[in-house]
Amino acid sequence: MPKPKILLDPHSRKSEWLFAPEEWQRLTDLAEIIWGKDDPIPPESFASVAAELTAIVTCGWRFGPLDALPRLRAILEVGGSHPSPRLLDYTACFQRGIRVLSCAPAFGPVVAEMALGLAIAAGRGIVEGDRLMRSGEERYSRAGNQDAFTLYGKRVGFIGYGGLAHSLQPLLAPFGCEFLAYDPWLPASYIQRQGVTPIGLDTLLSTCRVIFVLAVPSQENRGLIDRRRLELIQPDATFLLISRAYLVDFDALVELVNQGRFRVAIDVYPDEPVPPDHPVRRSHNTILSSHRAGHVPEDFRAIGRMVVDDLEAILHGLPPAEMQSAQPELVGRLR
Amino acid sequence: MPKPKILLDPHSRKSEWLFAPEEWQRLTDLAEIIWGKDDPIPPESFASVAAELTAIVTCGWRFGPLDALPRLRAILEVGGSHPSPRLLDYTACFQRGIRVLSCAPAFGPVVAEMALGLAIAAGRGIVEGDRLMRSGEERYSRAGNQDAFTLYGKRVGFIGYGGLAHSLQPLLAPFGCEFLAYDPWLPASYIQRQGVTPIGLDTLLSTCRVIFVLAVPSQENRGLIDRRRLELIQPDATFLLISRAYLVDFDALVELVNQGRFRVAIDVYPDEPVPPDHPVRRSHNTILSSHRAGHVPEDFRAIGRMVVDDLEAILHGLPPAEMQSAQPELVGRLR
Amino acid sequence: MPKPKILLDPHSRKSEWLFAPEEWQRLTDLAEIIWGKDDPIPPESFASVAAELTAIVTCGWRFGPLDALPRLRAILEVGGSHPSPRLLDYTACFQRGIRVLSCAPAFGPVVAEMALGLAIAAGRGIVEGDRLMRSGEERYSRAGNQDAFTLYGKRVGFIGYGGLAHSLQPLLAPFGCEFLAYDPWLPASYIQRQGVTPIGLDTLLSTCRVIFVLAVPSQENRGLIDRRRLELIQPDATFLLISRAYLVDFDALVELVNQGRFRVAIDVYPDEPVPPDHPVRRSHNTILSSHRAGHVPEDFRAIGRMVVDDLEAILHGLPPAEMQSAQPELVGRLR
Amino acid sequence: MPKPKILLDPHSRKSEWLFAPEEWQRLTDLAEIIWGKDDPIPPESFASVAAELTAIVTCGWRFGPLDALPRLRAILEVGGSHPSPRLLDYTACFQRGIRVLSCAPAFGPVVAEMALGLAIAAGRGIVEGDRLMRSGEERYSRAGNQDAFTLYGKRVGFIGYGGLAHSLQPLLAPFGCEFLAYDPWLPASYIQRQGVTPIGLDTLLSTCRVIFVLAVPSQENRGLIDRRRLELIQPDATFLLISRAYLVDFDALVELVNQGRFRVAIDVYPDEPVPPDHPVRRSHNTILSSHRAGHVPEDFRAIGRMVVDDLEAILHGLPPAEMQSAQPELVGRLR
Repeated sequence: MPKPKILLDPHSRKSEWLFAPEEWQRLTDLAEIIWGKDDPIPPESFASVAAELTAIVTCGWRFGPLDALPRLRAILEVGGSHPSPRLLDYTACFQRGIRVLSCAPAFGPVVAEMALGLAIAAGRGIVEGDRLMRSGEERYSRAGNQDAFTLYGKRVGFIGYGGLAHSLQPLLAPFGCEFLAYDPWLPASYIQRQGVTPIGLDTLLSTCRVIFVLAVPSQENRGLIDRRRLELIQPDATFLLISRAYLVDFDALVELVNQGRFRVAIDVYPDEPVPPDHPVRRSHNTILSSHRAGHVPEDFRAIGRMVVDDLEAILHGLPPAEMQSAQPELVGRLR
Repeated sequence: MPKPKILLDPHSRKSEWLFAPEEWQRLTDLAEIIWGKDDPIPPESFASVAAELTAIVTCGWRFGPLDALPRLRAILEVGGSHPSPRLLDYTACFQRGIRVLSCAPAFGPVVAEMALGLAIAAGRGIVEGDRLMRSGEERYSRAGNQDAFTLYGKRVGFIGYGGLAHSLQPLLAPFGCEFLAYDPWLPASYIQRQGVTPIGLDTLLSTCRVIFVLAVPSQENRGLIDRRRLELIQPDATFLLISRAYLVDFDALVELVNQGRFRVAIDVYPDEPVPPDHPVRRSHNTILSSHRAGHVPEDFRAIGRMVVDDLEAILHGLPPAEMQSAQPELVGRLR
Repeated sequence: MPKPKILLDPHSRKSEWLFAPEEWQRLTDLAEIIWGKDDPIPPESFASVAAELTAIVTCGWRFGPLDALPRLRAILEVGGSHPSPRLLDYTACFQRGIRVLSCAPAFGPVVAEMALGLAIAAGRGIVEGDRLMRSGEERYSRAGNQDAFTLYGKRVGFIGYGGLAHSLQPLLAPFGCEFLAYDPWLPASYIQRQGVTPIGLDTLLSTCRVIFVLAVPSQENRGLIDRRRLELIQPDATFLLISRAYLVDFDALVELVNQGRFRVAIDVYPDEPVPPDHPVRRSHNTILSSHRAGHVPEDFRAIGRMVVDDLEAILHGLPPAEMQSAQPELVGRLR
Repeated sequence: MPKPKILLDPHSRKSEWLFAPEEWQRLTDLAEIIWGKDDPIPPESFASVAAELTAIVTCGWRFGPLDALPRLRAILEVGGSHPSPRLLDYTACFQRGIRVLSCAPAFGPVVAEMALGLAIAAGRGIVEGDRLMRSGEERYSRAGNQDAFTLYGKRVGFIGYGGLAHSLQPLLAPFGCEFLAYDPWLPASYIQRQGVTPIGLDTLLSTCRVIFVLAVPSQENRGLIDRRRLELIQPDATFLLISRAYLVDFDALVELVNQGRFRVAIDVYPDEPVPPDHPVRRSHNTILSSHRAGHVPEDFRAIGRMVVDDLEAILHGLPPAEMQSAQPELVGRLR
């Protein structure tokens, strides 16, 4: 019997980034790869194969209505978030039982490590300490640690208790932190059973020593953390902007941190690349990272492994085990 | 019945650094504090009280022979290492059953956090990434992570598997690292049962991706990690000098790292303060910290709590539970 | 605005078993309870309310086709397994986006504790040891432990790596066991990343010291563990029948264990109650339990909490977080 | 240079019980074995070798004063508790720096597993449930679980927070228990940092659902848990007598449990073997075990491994890492 046909059109990712050789071998054993190049497939080429496709591996959605894809059983996206409902007809997907899968879970551990690293770097002054050693202004031992603090036993707040928080919490657990979370999409008792106290956003901001912004952007949370809320943050707290700048009043954030209101570590920005003259580049009390939390080459290939695992499951008539299935309730809420 | 007399002479520490108010209260309830100032007690003052002292809280040992201290039951040192056997007569201590206790365990967690923070900062380019953002040279996402690596699943080597390693291992455990250790003072099967593979030093250096120098200085390990051994380290490995520069050929280390042989994070130096013109200040592929791993003010008071806990135990005729008792076999070996 | 109408018809469960007072309060605040009695709702009564129902809390499915339920958004079953596809039209559920939720996850921890307790009881001879003390035939210390073994470091096999195994594995983790699993519904690399080695069933049976049968009954696994496979089990192994007798050739199991081939602990039987004269009642090398692993009264109310949490989520337009959603791929496979 | 001479006189243990072949090989490579038989060495034979012995591996102490042992550096006892101070001159040991080591730590994990198994068996009715299945009186599911309870989230009390508690706590941790401990030999803040609440004995007995007696017998704790204290135990609690009957008013315990006051699991008795007509044999609400918690043959050889490891360390001039060193403060307190 012929192998099922899979469209592999990962642009703007590259197949070589996604698949380790052994995963590529498994993939090609499993299915007939259509296209498989790093440029987007031309519309006419797509039209000629659409009717036979069992699954599509891609970023976002640029393939129009699903009527042209009668055999489609799965959409596996390798960008990091489900395709926009403005582009993909999710209602048709759910009615036809087409799985819409995101590789977002692949980023959890890698981003969590960066978030932890930035939190320790901020609390222990690792970036500033290196600068002082090079400028000859360093101070030693206690004298150099006047503003330092450790994570041990601290109150930590998660804004958004989804995949990133689930990857970060075990890294913080050995420090004996107290965990709080704000997540309006989850039942309080579910959060509690994870060893986390569900809490209102204002209370989280005003009482936590370390605050991680981990929520995905939604219709409801644009600018959620506005100036008023930023002003609730304690002077000696660290605020870490990890998931998306979209959730924060970024100008207010830069302004407040430059006033020395609290410490900040930032990996994501309203516009990337950040404009050359953007004030954040000259900000104080900040550690800046250029959207580097997620994409570490050697770990990136976890995406390919997930894609092959779940494709294999689906082709065997089993549910996917690794990628994140789109949920009917959330599709309309995501941005 | 009168309270036992305790000499509190913590110089060069300060009592206020060591004791939180509630611990100070417990201490003064427990014993009559003699001296208790931050300057060293003058010899004549000491001579006038020596005969009545039940315990001495101090750094190092500057009180001469033990004959003058007939009632002494415990020496609690708050500097971080047992007094030198050249100054303190340990044989007399062991024969008289005088406990010689070090607060070294108080530093384990704080130093371990810094070691983890430096390891992540080196692997993820946190220090360099901040510098590039400020100079406008940053690159984003994958392009900015060409040399980045995570701790997940990496082979990690501990040089010295004592207190620091025991504090660091649980922080690394969630990353699923493979642990190796070189420690000639511990039985192989003991190390194995901690989930760590005992290994020779050369193999550790040549096979580990992340290497932590955590051993205490001894008669045997000065310059243990010499140029030949440093040259065994893999190009993409990170070498973290955490416990003491004494164990390493420091000049060779700086020279090799400047050749781009591997990455280094350094918290301790042969001479501190580091001379203004020392080449390490201009080194590449390094993260520099000015001996700031251990002494974080708010955590420092763990020392006072340990001192009071163990003093209380000893005065009640119980063994100390928190500080580190000098071991007859090791006294002669420590430096 | 009026509260949504929820049919509460938990027969053969009882509402009082399911809902702690505080959960009952939350439930009634959230929705208008229809019926709510412990007997099944009469068809005519159901017919009169069906059109207005937003959700149904029940065991199994006795409400016919879904056409009569135009507003239905969720079916929350409180029996422990999804309704039979012979009774419920899952295709319609998936097309209409009706959530079909099972309380099965509520049983995981309770069953896992019993499975662990039976495994220790078998390895340490707890049941037999008590009998001998009462009959005066006991032997002490080593003499009484000739056949005893501990779980420490043993090779443990999970037949079925679903919810029960996920609840049991953390209870076994502190014993440093080596974990193997046979589960044809999961990708090998997914199992591996849980710290478990995926393995063939025959190898599992012939190499594990402790074997847990944890799989749910499916179209494919009736009598999966037949006489030939049972004969693969090592003489000193313990075989624990926890999920369903359906997976095993039960007569062969009793016969082999009576020959002293291995040890067995059994909580589930082909027919319950077990016939008075069934040979299993007189079996040797066995620990028998009367289907008591799952239903512990004080823990049973976790079901009610899950029902209210997920109902709340669904009524707020959010995905359920606690109960198990029916998966299109599995519906046809479950029995 | 000649090998050091070690007296191996383990009576009433047997060398074959203690040493796996590979450990025996290590031992004989390390030292010249004197005697090495399972009967006690005759006094005259001992006298002829005493002067040359570097270490003695034995149970208890039957070798008289230490003057006859000028070269002795270590006493390694393989019975499970340090030799009685009435037989061994500890003062001389401490003055001469002779290590007195106990193999007690080898028993921790094995006893902890039994303690956990008994706790689950009592809470889940495993012993009684098996009896009922055999007598045909069993009831199923909820009806059979009216008195059952799980460990999840329960308040657990440790009477004695030494080695056994340290081995048991990690086995209970996955159940999310709340831990309390009574141990007058440990500082409260030390206990707290283990995640355990230090508490008075009466409060522990009157508030815990599961109570483990784990303390070693001392001069101070004979009959510590007397009738008055036993009467504090809650009706639905389980009381587990694991370490020594010496700590409990045993007659009162049997009497109260027969009144149905609470549940009990017993592994240790005032007299062993228990007299044939002792009422405990006919007691209700009890699970009885004949001092079988500690001595499981395949795990017993951990003792030999510890002996060889620590002997090796000591002969290399290093401190022992595995066995328990006698503490001057405790010697006089132990019974």
